[in-house]
Amino acid sequence: SQIVVQSGLIEYYDISGCYILRPPAYGIWENIQQFIDARIKRMGVENAYFPCFVSQATLKKEEDELNGFTPEVAWVTKSGQTDLQEPIALRPTSETIIYPAFKNWISGHRDLPMKVNQWCNVVRWEFSHPYPFIRTREFLWQEGHTAFSNQPEAEKECHEIMELYASVYEDLLAVPVIRGKKSKGETFPGAYYSLTVECIVPTNGRSIQAATSHHLGQTFSKLFDIEFEDESNKKQLAWQNSWGLSTRSIGVTVMTHGDNKGVVIPPRAAQKQVVIITLHHKGSPNDEMDTKAVELSQLLLDNGIRAFADTNDMHKPGWKFSEYEMRGIPIRIELGPRDYDGKKVVIVRRDNGAKTESSWDNLVETIKKTIDEMHNCMYQKALAARDAHVVKINSWNEFLDQLDNRNACL
Amino acid sequence: SQIVVQSGLIEYYDISGCYILRPPAYGIWENIQQFIDARIKRMGVENAYFPCFVSQATLKKEEDELNGFTPEVAWVTKSGQTDLQEPIALRPTSETIIYPAFKNWISGHRDLPMKVNQWCNVVRWEFSHPYPFIRTREFLWQEGHTAFSNQPEAEKECHEIMELYASVYEDLLAVPVIRGKKSKGETFPGAYYSLTVECIVPTNGRSIQAATSHHLGQTFSKLFDIEFEDESNKKQLAWQNSWGLSTRSIGVTVMTHGDNKGVVIPPRAAQKQVVIITLHHKGSPNDEMDTKAVELSQLLLDNGIRAFADTNDMHKPGWKFSEYEMRGIPIRIELGPRDYDGKKVVIVRRDNGAKTESSWDNLVETIKKTIDEMHNCMYQKALAARDAHVVKINSWNEFLDQLDNRNACL
Repeated sequence: SQIVVQSGLIEYYDISGCYILRPPAYGIWENIQQFIDARIKRMGVENAYFPCFVSQATLKKEEDELNGFTPEVAWVTKSGQTDLQEPIALRPTSETIIYPAFKNWISGHRDLPMKVNQWCNVVRWEFSHPYPFIRTREFLWQEGHTAFSNQPEAEKECHEIMELYASVYEDLLAVPVIRGKKSKGETFPGAYYSLTVECIVPTNGRSIQAATSHHLGQTFSKLFDIEFEDESNKKQLAWQNSWGLSTRSIGVTVMTHGDNKGVVIPPRAAQKQVVIITLHHKGSPNDEMDTKAVELSQLLLDNGIRAFADTNDMHKPGWKFSEYEMRGIPIRIELGPRDYDGKKVVIVRRDNGAKTESSWDNLVETIKKTIDEMHNCMYQKALAARDAHVVKINSWNEFLDQLDNRNACL
Repeated sequence: SQIVVQSGLIEYYDISGCYILRPPAYGIWENIQQFIDARIKRMGVENAYFPCFVSQATLKKEEDELNGFTPEVAWVTKSGQTDLQEPIALRPTSETIIYPAFKNWISGHRDLPMKVNQWCNVVRWEFSHPYPFIRTREFLWQEGHTAFSNQPEAEKECHEIMELYASVYEDLLAVPVIRGKKSKGETFPGAYYSLTVECIVPTNGRSIQAATSHHLGQTFSKLFDIEFEDESNKKQLAWQNSWGLSTRSIGVTVMTHGDNKGVVIPPRAAQKQVVIITLHHKGSPNDEMDTKAVELSQLLLDNGIRAFADTNDMHKPGWKFSEYEMRGIPIRIELGPRDYDGKKVVIVRRDNGAKTESSWDNLVETIKKTIDEMHNCMYQKALAARDAHVVKINSWNEFLDQLDNRNACL
């Protein structure tokens, strides 16, 4: 967990369980947002924003029936010096906030499906071992809340969303996931079932929940009177889903790909994908080379590659190499005097240190290819590491043995 | 304020001063986000995320010196059934949250300028007359926080940001603004000065703050020890700015452009810019025409125009016209049997009802042109309405007279 501070992803904060997401971490989140947002909009989901506050009465309605987040709820009881008449909760999740509105918005079958999503912060006052990204008192996520006129349509979406989440991990974050269904005890309170994508953390063999898609059935529509008139004018309860992926995904990514030099950020998700370093001695800048480095970084930027040039002469190239390796910048481009004369550069991959050369003319193409190759390579490596830790077992004794060996069991 | 409910922008909520931003409202916010985000990134600003909580001690540090938001701060005092050891505040703004981190991140002049922004929710427990978008207990905004090694650079940015905010209003929201400096009493607590863009609400002639850019000088760097070593290794205090634009901007937009048929959403900012309505009788759909309508909406979407087709046969065309007028959809495209035969459509502008025709082949081009014309026309109309309410006055009596006439005074 110290590694995420050194890498510049996280800064500690003076309230326990709260962390600052610095630009390299938030940049990953922005790329995740873009990935998900474009895809759910194509599925007909619209973004909205609901208050972060829940009245005690509304929250209690859920709690009585469902026994959900009670111990983790943070309560606002004062404004300035004044006590509020009633304590008001901060959202730990928004079913109770959104569904009273659904009741108002849904009356006939033509109002369905209703598909709403929000990007927001939620608060769960976790007491047990806070951990950056993974277990935090406030985190960012998207939460989708949808209502359908029939169960098959709802269930179809629930599965589609799980595939979307798997794709976020596999195609953007280069993290292999296992698709599954939560056990009864881990199912979302009130849901008919919860689908989940889970990752195995190689260092301890534990499974970690990476995102969930809940088929809520009619539990909440019953609780919040979300009814519609069907084609034959009969009142029916809506069928609902809720689904979410949070900033925990960044933590999963960091834990999956890190090595002994620091973090390794998957190239499609990195805030900055490429650093260009000019190889001149400390204190002796080289104007031509530095100008070229800035020019090449602009060329890459113009072609949708998030690049920047480091022509700073305060540090030696070797110092910069270690620095950006620790930070996990996926690709390093080196531009030295000999490269300059040959109108080329050296390209170094963060994941395996592999070096190749590219002419300036081919640079955009080469980097695009390198990003895809690196992504695939990181995914395969993580998959192999995971598979080495997953075993099938047939008995309880076998199970205990394998846990001791830091393996996950199927 | 009832109009924003009927238009589908807002839904009321069971906690006073809190409102739900429905997709047409949040869609405007997304367009504002895109507009600002692209531009500040070009200025070298990076996004991050800081906790929504402030410890009492840190907040007090600011309060003692600056006497800021005290009465409006919401306090979390409990989690579950347990009392917290110390109450924790929800951010009313993030100077006190971000600047202790700046202290850690800034040591030499090469760390400057430091430019950080976050998109987040903030809470100000307003007691006086909550009003959708304009005065709300929770709202969404961006807050930029920047530090420079010298005052001229900081002041330059402070002015650039005010121009950016003016551009959000003028070029995206079609709202004319007045650029100015806040009076001493209205200056942000601790700032050397606050620049502001303000709008005049035509219905009451009052000025409303549309966005602010504060030059904080060295007030906070002194308070939070944000020092850097300059070129000659001397310790110096950083020069700082903070600046923000919030979801209030949506309210300002709605108040500026509304007419007696409902809201009028400026076309560049609208979540949905174009509705295509097929003119068939209630209950008698026309397959060919409906298919064409969907096809044309797809053509517009593929060209970056946010269009949708309403081929629903539950309602008469006239009912749909009123409905979308109330909702403020900028452009209506009508496709009737005669239009279909002539391979054309009728285009109706929401702001002035002007009708034109376009062939299917020219549609994309015509709509793009219409969006720009409509934008300019709405801006000019709002400017004329405002100028009719702004008067220069020379004496106190004149001032009072003009206020009675619902005019703003310069």
